[in-house]
Amino acid sequence: MDRPGALAALRAAVAGFATDCLPGATSWCVALSGGPDSLALTAAAATALPTTALIVDHGLQAGSAAIAETARRQAHDLGCVDAQVLAVSVGTGGGPEAAARTARYAALDAARGQAPVLLAHTLDDQAETVLLGLGRGSGARSIAGMRAADPPWYRPLLGVRRAVTHDACAELGLPAWDDPHNRDPRFTRVRLRTEVLPLLEEVLGGGVAQALARTAAALREDTDALDGFAEDAIDDDGETVAVAALTELPTAVRRRVIRRWLLRGGAVNLTDKQIRAVDALVTAWHGQGGVAVGSDLRQQRLFAARRDGRLMLYSQPV
Amino acid sequence: MDRPGALAALRAAVAGFATDCLPGATSWCVALSGGPDSLALTAAAATALPTTALIVDHGLQAGSAAIAETARRQAHDLGCVDAQVLAVSVGTGGGPEAAARTARYAALDAARGQAPVLLAHTLDDQAETVLLGLGRGSGARSIAGMRAADPPWYRPLLGVRRAVTHDACAELGLPAWDDPHNRDPRFTRVRLRTEVLPLLEEVLGGGVAQALARTAAALREDTDALDGFAEDAIDDDGETVAVAALTELPTAVRRRVIRRWLLRGGAVNLTDKQIRAVDALVTAWHGQGGVAVGSDLRQQRLFAARRDGRLMLYSQPV
Repeated sequence: MDRPGALAALRAAVAGFATDCLPGATSWCVALSGGPDSLALTAAAATALPTTALIVDHGLQAGSAAIAETARRQAHDLGCVDAQVLAVSVGTGGGPEAAARTARYAALDAARGQAPVLLAHTLDDQAETVLLGLGRGSGARSIAGMRAADPPWYRPLLGVRRAVTHDACAELGLPAWDDPHNRDPRFTRVRLRTEVLPLLEEVLGGGVAQALARTAAALREDTDALDGFAEDAIDDDGETVAVAALTELPTAVRRRVIRRWLLRGGAVNLTDKQIRAVDALVTAWHGQGGVAVGSDLRQQRLFAARRDGRLMLYSQPV
Repeated sequence: MDRPGALAALRAAVAGFATDCLPGATSWCVALSGGPDSLALTAAAATALPTTALIVDHGLQAGSAAIAETARRQAHDLGCVDAQVLAVSVGTGGGPEAAARTARYAALDAARGQAPVLLAHTLDDQAETVLLGLGRGSGARSIAGMRAADPPWYRPLLGVRRAVTHDACAELGLPAWDDPHNRDPRFTRVRLRTEVLPLLEEVLGGGVAQALARTAAALREDTDALDGFAEDAIDDDGETVAVAALTELPTAVRRRVIRRWLLRGGAVNLTDKQIRAVDALVTAWHGQGGVAVGSDLRQQRLFAARRDGRLMLYSQPV
């Protein structure tokens, strides 16, 4: 038997994903950049269900309109029932990459109607995401990577190597757009891809990208389970929570209950250190004062404190 | 106020650790290699409690007896109540590093009597251990690093940078043994230390070792909680387990119940893939046959299978 080609492998991955994660779907959208990953995904998706290609033109690079137009024509040629270019204006909040992402997802969400949107993230993207999260050090949550199904966003290629999408484009004779950002070492993700991952592969003896992706999937399951236990365990009146109920919980669940409670009370940008300090009000109580946490209130500081056997939040003017 | 010196920082770390993890201890042992980490730990430990230094001579390098003897004299000079050289003969099982470790821990365990043994692993060792585990890809268990308290072994320096132990030796004017293995690039751990971690620090903008250590601690808590839930959830008759009880569990707990059940039934060297295949007997049942797993039985192969709504194990002659 012949080894199936790259496009056949992608089609099988997309069809299996549709059965598992989108059993009732009758049509879908694909987020298409014009690069090899999303072009190959578009080719595979269009043979499975009626597909609308959504091409975001960020307007950030010279010639971006022409790149988007090329992708639109390729989508039609690949059998998409529709292909739309969405011109967005990118703000500045949170740095250029975050601002572009915010604008992109907003445009995709507005254009998709009721349809799910397929994203072309591959196993290699997942491995890079895990490494990026390692630098944050906030436990499983920061290295659990991207979800395969995160409605309305779906990632059918998380188990597929990037090389397969490139091979599929070659099989189809499709010229893909080569985004110069993907080779610009000013981007952390590019250096992880081109320097760190190859070195790790060499030192650890190969299979690192797959191992990182497996780890991400396992940690996602762990986090989902522990978040579920934390949700069931919480015993509060909407504002305060009983210390006695918290002390009975395993540490990992107790910290998650505290995190959830702080977020519901208006805390923002929580750090691991803050959560541990609030946890110490439960487990290492010696009459200490309130713990300051970031707040979404203007001109106010938010504190978590222990009073009469319960954790409570209070705010003070700055 | 002056910034406390490195030795003072180590003493504070050891004293805090003793209060938290060894509250009833009246004496302890320190595993001393003669290198800077264990020499500095010995110095700090000997000022806190009566300390016996245990120096393992693996007999693998020329001059190892002289190195051990130097360490023994240093331990006496640092105020240890006793210092013993333990000569061991290293086998070959599992490769040279694993064989040396097995022989070392056996000798330490035999010599310690009833006392706990302090090990000098630092935050940097923990970070390297996490990176080593990333290559395995078996989820939280493989990257949760070393435990601070794992009786009779205790690691008071897991939150201390390696540089601090080196500085403490300098403060004491103690010449430490510089193990040539620690610079030999044939060891994976050495390359992680000298190549991968510095590159990750540069690419991710610093703080990576601390972030890896924080992640290890958080994942350890997660794993402990999930293992606890798995232990409570198991519903078996010692040999078989009801599928109906398993299907109600979150995925992360269900996989751990299956892992536990397989290990108790005699499975060895379990892989993530095998556990997922047994899990599929529960979640993706279509009448498939038994799943082969590694067995500790000679001349027998072990299989997990589903029969009449229960998982069961059976063995077959090879």
